[in-house]
Amino acid sequence: MIKIETEKQFYELLQKIQSYQEALNVLFWDLRTGAPKKGVDQRSKTIGILSAEEFRLKTSDEMKRLLDELSATPDLSPKTRAAVEESIKEYSKYKKIPEAEYAEYVMLQTKAESVWETAKETNDFPLFAPYLEQLVETNKKFLGYWGYEGTPYNTLLGFYEPGMTVDVLDRVFAQLREKIVPLVQNISAASKQPNADFIYGTFPAEEQKKASEFFLKELGYDFSAGRLDETIHPFQISINRSDVRVTTKYDEQDFRTAVFGTIHECGHALYEQNISEELEGTPLCSGTSYGIHESQSLFYENFIGRSFGFWKRYYETFRSFSPEQLQSVSLEDFYFAINESKPSLIRIEADELTYSLHIMIRYEIEKELFNGNLAVADLPEVWNRKYEEYLGVVPPNDAKGVLQDVHWAGGSFGYFPSYALGLLYGAQFRNAMLKDLPDLEDRIERGELGSILSWLTEKIHQHGKTKKPLQLLQEVTGEELNADHLITYLTEKYSRLYSLS
Amino acid sequence: MIKIETEKQFYELLQKIQSYQEALNVLFWDLRTGAPKKGVDQRSKTIGILSAEEFRLKTSDEMKRLLDELSATPDLSPKTRAAVEESIKEYSKYKKIPEAEYAEYVMLQTKAESVWETAKETNDFPLFAPYLEQLVETNKKFLGYWGYEGTPYNTLLGFYEPGMTVDVLDRVFAQLREKIVPLVQNISAASKQPNADFIYGTFPAEEQKKASEFFLKELGYDFSAGRLDETIHPFQISINRSDVRVTTKYDEQDFRTAVFGTIHECGHALYEQNISEELEGTPLCSGTSYGIHESQSLFYENFIGRSFGFWKRYYETFRSFSPEQLQSVSLEDFYFAINESKPSLIRIEADELTYSLHIMIRYEIEKELFNGNLAVADLPEVWNRKYEEYLGVVPPNDAKGVLQDVHWAGGSFGYFPSYALGLLYGAQFRNAMLKDLPDLEDRIERGELGSILSWLTEKIHQHGKTKKPLQLLQEVTGEELNADHLITYLTEKYSRLYSLS
Repeated sequence: MIKIETEKQFYELLQKIQSYQEALNVLFWDLRTGAPKKGVDQRSKTIGILSAEEFRLKTSDEMKRLLDELSATPDLSPKTRAAVEESIKEYSKYKKIPEAEYAEYVMLQTKAESVWETAKETNDFPLFAPYLEQLVETNKKFLGYWGYEGTPYNTLLGFYEPGMTVDVLDRVFAQLREKIVPLVQNISAASKQPNADFIYGTFPAEEQKKASEFFLKELGYDFSAGRLDETIHPFQISINRSDVRVTTKYDEQDFRTAVFGTIHECGHALYEQNISEELEGTPLCSGTSYGIHESQSLFYENFIGRSFGFWKRYYETFRSFSPEQLQSVSLEDFYFAINESKPSLIRIEADELTYSLHIMIRYEIEKELFNGNLAVADLPEVWNRKYEEYLGVVPPNDAKGVLQDVHWAGGSFGYFPSYALGLLYGAQFRNAMLKDLPDLEDRIERGELGSILSWLTEKIHQHGKTKKPLQLLQEVTGEELNADHLITYLTEKYSRLYSLS
Repeated sequence: MIKIETEKQFYELLQKIQSYQEALNVLFWDLRTGAPKKGVDQRSKTIGILSAEEFRLKTSDEMKRLLDELSATPDLSPKTRAAVEESIKEYSKYKKIPEAEYAEYVMLQTKAESVWETAKETNDFPLFAPYLEQLVETNKKFLGYWGYEGTPYNTLLGFYEPGMTVDVLDRVFAQLREKIVPLVQNISAASKQPNADFIYGTFPAEEQKKASEFFLKELGYDFSAGRLDETIHPFQISINRSDVRVTTKYDEQDFRTAVFGTIHECGHALYEQNISEELEGTPLCSGTSYGIHESQSLFYENFIGRSFGFWKRYYETFRSFSPEQLQSVSLEDFYFAINESKPSLIRIEADELTYSLHIMIRYEIEKELFNGNLAVADLPEVWNRKYEEYLGVVPPNDAKGVLQDVHWAGGSFGYFPSYALGLLYGAQFRNAMLKDLPDLEDRIERGELGSILSWLTEKIHQHGKTKKPLQLLQEVTGEELNADHLITYLTEKYSRLYSLS
């Protein structure tokens, strides 16, 4: 009887926490999709106050009591057991840090992000450096509270990718780099190159919106449990399990931003829309890790959205949204152009092939910041050296180099690897899918995207956070994390595109 | 020293309460402007949980301690004094009711609203009657806790219009009714009648949106501190002092819904956008009463938006949004048509002249429910009899009669009179404005709407809740509440329009 009452109280507390999250997510979404600028100051206070309340609930004595009692109960359902574990993880992460130190850190993050913005605009790394140093030092101090296995950086990795370690990443990234770097070089030297000029013609935003809505529907996005809006930096956000929103950006001079951005966010949204209803109201009702989440968005963006079959199916329709611009462009030329690969400076503009190299550079720097002796002051030099080594390009300034991403300013160390993990997981999932659906490419070409979504839902989506990322990978593919499938996929695709021998 | 610390804690608590309100208002706004329908169930839970938290803060022991200490402090600033008084009012209103009874009442409201919806759809008053009875009975019980001066209904009136009593309302409503009823009859019998057929031509929503945005800007609405969205039942909502939103509805078969709806909500919004910055973060940062708020929306909708000068200024521009439909309609015919007056059944569709009669009927019924012996079961009969007596029309069914408004289903007894008070206050304010701006009509015709807004801001808007409605009326107009100015305005306008002798 005690257990039933405790369990009830536990789920009520989880529901309460989720309500704060729903409110915070709506406040955030609203801020990014058209909230008037004069109201932002007060909005920031509101977000601060409600976030603090949410934090207090997650680290409350009441939460501790419930977790202690439930942990000592032997016959919990698997769902409750997993929800308890997840809550303990959150409780420990935050509770181990003295409250005053955490509050100070939150203020530091806010300040650092705003300084970073100025530093990026004015190309002034030394302005940002002291804040970055403080962020690194504070995280090192926190690592003293959190503890670690193997190396300190493993703990940071684990916040985004539970179970991930530098040993694993070093191995697969080395494997990947060894094959990708020469492939990138061969492509740069190839005589066959796409003509992508047509991409930059004017494509009216209103028509891009129609195309985005069309693709979302085709891919299986449920508009009665979501909506599409415009923003500056596109994102997907789950308000609640049945309200999963996507945002996109309409660049009239480059339709790729909207088309591939929408398909990417759609991949994230399909994951969240198809989590088992049973997990609603618990911290398990979300993607299991940043890397697995990214595997779903990249699966849709690359394996579906950048495939030949997809455009064989949809090019005519897409062209109907912009008859002028694409009238004289053949399907083949279109396909080649949207898959153009060349070394570049900016991560978010990188193509499918070079993208992981951008990530490896950031990973190696983060690792050295926490496990080695790399000083913040040396970052620009290390950054530029690695860009030359991996991609053959050197940033002309820090704004286009080490200052380009916001992640470090927000203290998100350990986040970057999940982008590359998304590519790796995605390729492994694709390989497993091909065993069940050997006619995958034909299905895409016939627009039978429902069977793909069903497979992903059954194997991945429905489980939410009940399975850890590496456990899920093992169960779905029967393999450990490896770079083989991504290498094979990229080598085949790009050798064919660029007619490499 | 103790006082300063107490005051600081008080303002922190007020800021916290305001943050909950901001979150709740965004959640509500979002729900009414496109939130996906599948997410509504979870959204309701979230709203319930956060509302309960807000309620707890307002009625907390901490609030009581701060209010007690501050009430006993002699040298408070006028602002703090007013904020304390406002907080005591809220504290007492809710604290006097036992928590369990209040929670039960909130559930009853929710249930009653949903039953009312069905009852209205199926024209089934007996289905709704038991809920309405319970709502009335519960409010009567609450009146036992709240107490009253004069009559029980005065307390309910006071929640919406502090200081208002049935004595005052009986007097001014009688005065108004005596003049309006014969005027309505004369107009019905007049030989000159407008031809309003052109109103019902198709007017594309996209063009109506442009017209709405145009009018909002002309009237002085600040888009950098607000936004315009589409909804089913238009409303204005203040997210925070610098984020004051309006919504409207585009009926392609009747442009009046959007045009006058937008101008009406704009009047509400201008009030909220121009409250003194100093009041931010306190419960004083809002319109002082429902009636004064309505006086601002109706001032813009009627005295400006339905005036001849306004259309002399803007008719050509408005016609440019819909060249087809209005091409052959003269300014004079347009002006007459949008001011057409005739007795009708539905309050929200009523014109400027007959509107107050709809309100009087509701007021008299509410008053008898709480001060007299009117039984809920007799409502349809009383309703229909009064419609015949006041307006000369009889509802063919209860859906178009006693069931038409949601207010009673939400337990909002005492709310209706504020609509008529808005007309009365508004006409009194207009009379006072004419003393300072005798060329008011010319200013409107020249599009000099800024001077009107400045006058309203100086006299009314900036003060927020620091002045009580009847005090404000006295200070601005030098008069008690009376119907003289409204009667004069309506008589002159409609006699001229319909060429009455």
